[in-house]
Amino acid sequence: MPAKSTYTALTEHYARLHRYHHLSAILGWDRSAMMPPGGMEARAAAEAELNALIHRHRTDARMAGWIEAAEQEALNDFERANLREIRRDWREANALPEALVEAKTLAEARCEHAWRTQRGANDWAGFLPNFREVLRLAREEARYLADDSGLEPYDALLDRYEPGARAADLARLFGEVRGWLPDLVARIRDKQASERVIEPVGPFPRERQRTLGLEMMKLLGFDFEAGRLDESAHPFSGGVPEDVRLTTRYREDDFTQSLMGIIHETGHARYEQNLPREWLGQPIAQARSFGIHESQSLAFEMQLARSRAFADLLAPMLAEHLGAQAAFEPGNLHRLLTRVRPGLIRVDADEVTYPAHVILRFEIERALIAGEAEAEDVPVLWDSQMAVLLDLDTRDNYRDGCMQDVHWPAGAFGYFPSYTLGAIYAAQWFAAIRRETPDLDAQIARGELSAVFEWLRTNIWSQASRWETPELVRRASGSALDATHLRRHLETRYLG
Amino acid sequence: MPAKSTYTALTEHYARLHRYHHLSAILGWDRSAMMPPGGMEARAAAEAELNALIHRHRTDARMAGWIEAAEQEALNDFERANLREIRRDWREANALPEALVEAKTLAEARCEHAWRTQRGANDWAGFLPNFREVLRLAREEARYLADDSGLEPYDALLDRYEPGARAADLARLFGEVRGWLPDLVARIRDKQASERVIEPVGPFPRERQRTLGLEMMKLLGFDFEAGRLDESAHPFSGGVPEDVRLTTRYREDDFTQSLMGIIHETGHARYEQNLPREWLGQPIAQARSFGIHESQSLAFEMQLARSRAFADLLAPMLAEHLGAQAAFEPGNLHRLLTRVRPGLIRVDADEVTYPAHVILRFEIERALIAGEAEAEDVPVLWDSQMAVLLDLDTRDNYRDGCMQDVHWPAGAFGYFPSYTLGAIYAAQWFAAIRRETPDLDAQIARGELSAVFEWLRTNIWSQASRWETPELVRRASGSALDATHLRRHLETRYLG
Repeated sequence: MPAKSTYTALTEHYARLHRYHHLSAILGWDRSAMMPPGGMEARAAAEAELNALIHRHRTDARMAGWIEAAEQEALNDFERANLREIRRDWREANALPEALVEAKTLAEARCEHAWRTQRGANDWAGFLPNFREVLRLAREEARYLADDSGLEPYDALLDRYEPGARAADLARLFGEVRGWLPDLVARIRDKQASERVIEPVGPFPRERQRTLGLEMMKLLGFDFEAGRLDESAHPFSGGVPEDVRLTTRYREDDFTQSLMGIIHETGHARYEQNLPREWLGQPIAQARSFGIHESQSLAFEMQLARSRAFADLLAPMLAEHLGAQAAFEPGNLHRLLTRVRPGLIRVDADEVTYPAHVILRFEIERALIAGEAEAEDVPVLWDSQMAVLLDLDTRDNYRDGCMQDVHWPAGAFGYFPSYTLGAIYAAQWFAAIRRETPDLDAQIARGELSAVFEWLRTNIWSQASRWETPELVRRASGSALDATHLRRHLETRYLG
Repeated sequence: MPAKSTYTALTEHYARLHRYHHLSAILGWDRSAMMPPGGMEARAAAEAELNALIHRHRTDARMAGWIEAAEQEALNDFERANLREIRRDWREANALPEALVEAKTLAEARCEHAWRTQRGANDWAGFLPNFREVLRLAREEARYLADDSGLEPYDALLDRYEPGARAADLARLFGEVRGWLPDLVARIRDKQASERVIEPVGPFPRERQRTLGLEMMKLLGFDFEAGRLDESAHPFSGGVPEDVRLTTRYREDDFTQSLMGIIHETGHARYEQNLPREWLGQPIAQARSFGIHESQSLAFEMQLARSRAFADLLAPMLAEHLGAQAAFEPGNLHRLLTRVRPGLIRVDADEVTYPAHVILRFEIERALIAGEAEAEDVPVLWDSQMAVLLDLDTRDNYRDGCMQDVHWPAGAFGYFPSYTLGAIYAAQWFAAIRRETPDLDAQIARGELSAVFEWLRTNIWSQASRWETPELVRRASGSALDATHLRRHLETRYLG
């Protein structure tokens, strides 16, 4: 019997890490969806213990030698790709000195905690000192990651969320979008000004919304043998690929928030549920990136569920579960789900104005990390770009301006671009699906969604982290990432 | 600054173990109450990983030296008691050779798994070979534990569930009970034969039962900031002291099962929720034993909730939540909740006949471990004692006879006595409470339950594992454990 290869030892190490992550994922879901408030202190201690264990495991002193030795072994392509992902994880776990990790944890916890009340109080002056410290440490972090990887500092942050993405490419891509977006928004607003939309009349009882949501998940192929739907204050998709935990939140005066939220999260869920089982437990079997993940939720929510064809499918479901009313006529329903209204809040934005929110944040955080802007410059940058991009005045309104998101107080620089990358990927996927299935809309209207699911399964879900992102995009869609698909999609849907 | 004592190092080691147990408890609750079936395989692997971690931690090679060194240090009484409990845990974790643990795990899993279908098929012959192997390994286990502790083999098994309990004492105690029980049952049956009981008429919708259950938990002092109620196939009290997770199961044709089950589990829950917080994380802060735990659930379910006074309190709650009906008249309600009917199934037994089920099992398992009986002798022992104790014929009915419980297939010898110890303890606690509060029943009928709660808090909950069980009993009730209290309680309630 041949001696066990070093590569095999590495995969066993990562299989164990996968099991630790399972514990962590279910406990995190429980904390958000189930735990009573009094459980918090003991839970925080228990989760910190688990996180410390996971950190020790990821930074095991033997890893460097194992990775080096495994790279000399005879490995097939899959194994090489897995080793690449193992190296990425190991590098990320080891890049920062422990003192910096601790300082970041403290500063971010302090800043985020205070932000929770400062936001409501519109207290930018109170927020600024904490935020300065978070930014200082994020810059330090970026320098460490950059030294380690050879990337530019902001690219090194970006790489954690979107491996392979570079700020220069994003600047080109987003630059294109900001070139056509303001005019597009204006033309859509003009067109919609003359449209009449009948508002749905509530209340919509929580239990009926839940039943509707469950039926929608079924229609969208969610596997209830391997997941469940619950409630939480901030909806999310959690759990593990073998047991995906979705959450939503019901408002009895507006069913669309919960329904579209469930559709969004189901997109995330199907990606997880359909990751390749034969590699499960290895880094290669994980979802590719935040942006690719978001492309699944947006493919479901934006590309599919807000299409005109889907309104034909949705209308009778609404009538059945919520009672028939004029607003549920398919044409009206579609108008309702595609209204464009520039607004201050990113999470409430429609799919047309959403990229503006992200581009603004990308440009500011890139400048912050590069040292081209300081924390105190954020409001003026914010105000000027909101005026340019969406023609909105945010002066002195920090609460609904630069203080609206948790990302920066929490030190998550480099995260925002994933949202709009997701929207661009999703448009590119659907362009490919439509090429392959010319009668897609007719199929959707009949409730036949397999063309969508099979394309995503073949090209995205089953590929997991087999390829680096640009290669995944080329293999899936036949070309490099291209914002033209998003533009065409928006023009067709909103002006066509 | 003085060097950290070895005792302190031990407490830190155990605080970490407490946090690992937190993870394990919440995941176990999730598996039973939340997890979809498809999650099982991955969950089993993740939980096995955690169990292995916990086992490594409990058997840390440094522990022996630490314990020995700590015993030489200047410790106060609390610390000495905690060290005693640490030693107990460490001894239990180390007593068995790994090969035996593995063999037991395999044999028990095989036996229990097959039992799940064999029981329904009444297949004693199919069950016997697996059960023989489980028994063989349990005897081996008992010998190891006995060698390690200096106890008799069966006592060594018993000690894991009821520290300090000895079979000889139980034999005396249970011998007394079996002396008066059959005659008592007969007299009660005679008396009840002429009583008229109006049956409640269902259905009782699940949601109403749930609301009733939640209100009952509130009345019984359950802290919803530190726990919750859900559903599972087999109701239990899980979670951690800071976050107790109860479950129940609703039958729409019979609300009493869920209601009395919730009251029972709330007794367990209040013990956990009121363990002393200042010692939390240390073995001394844990519940004393299985029997003492059961004494809390039975104090709530049997002593309190099936009392005549409690029926006055319960009647209007039932009418409010389930709709008024004749069966909810307090006198009728009390008769309904105190009907005595000898039956084959332990878990369905009333409080009068229950001890018979336990005494029978205790006598058989003690003989099995001592080698005075073999696996194949179980049915004949069972049949003869069921006839003597409850005048029931179980011949050839293995399904509702000796194959009814999971405990033996799962290798849990020594567990059964805890149930009846719990009933005897509970009767002794209530005798003490009644001495201190002569108008207890009037208070209960008015919904004033603080006399019960305060006595339990002072004498049981807050004491946790501060004392060994016999000392706890003496301190709480003023005398050693005495089955006379149970007898008096049953005679007063059922014949008085």
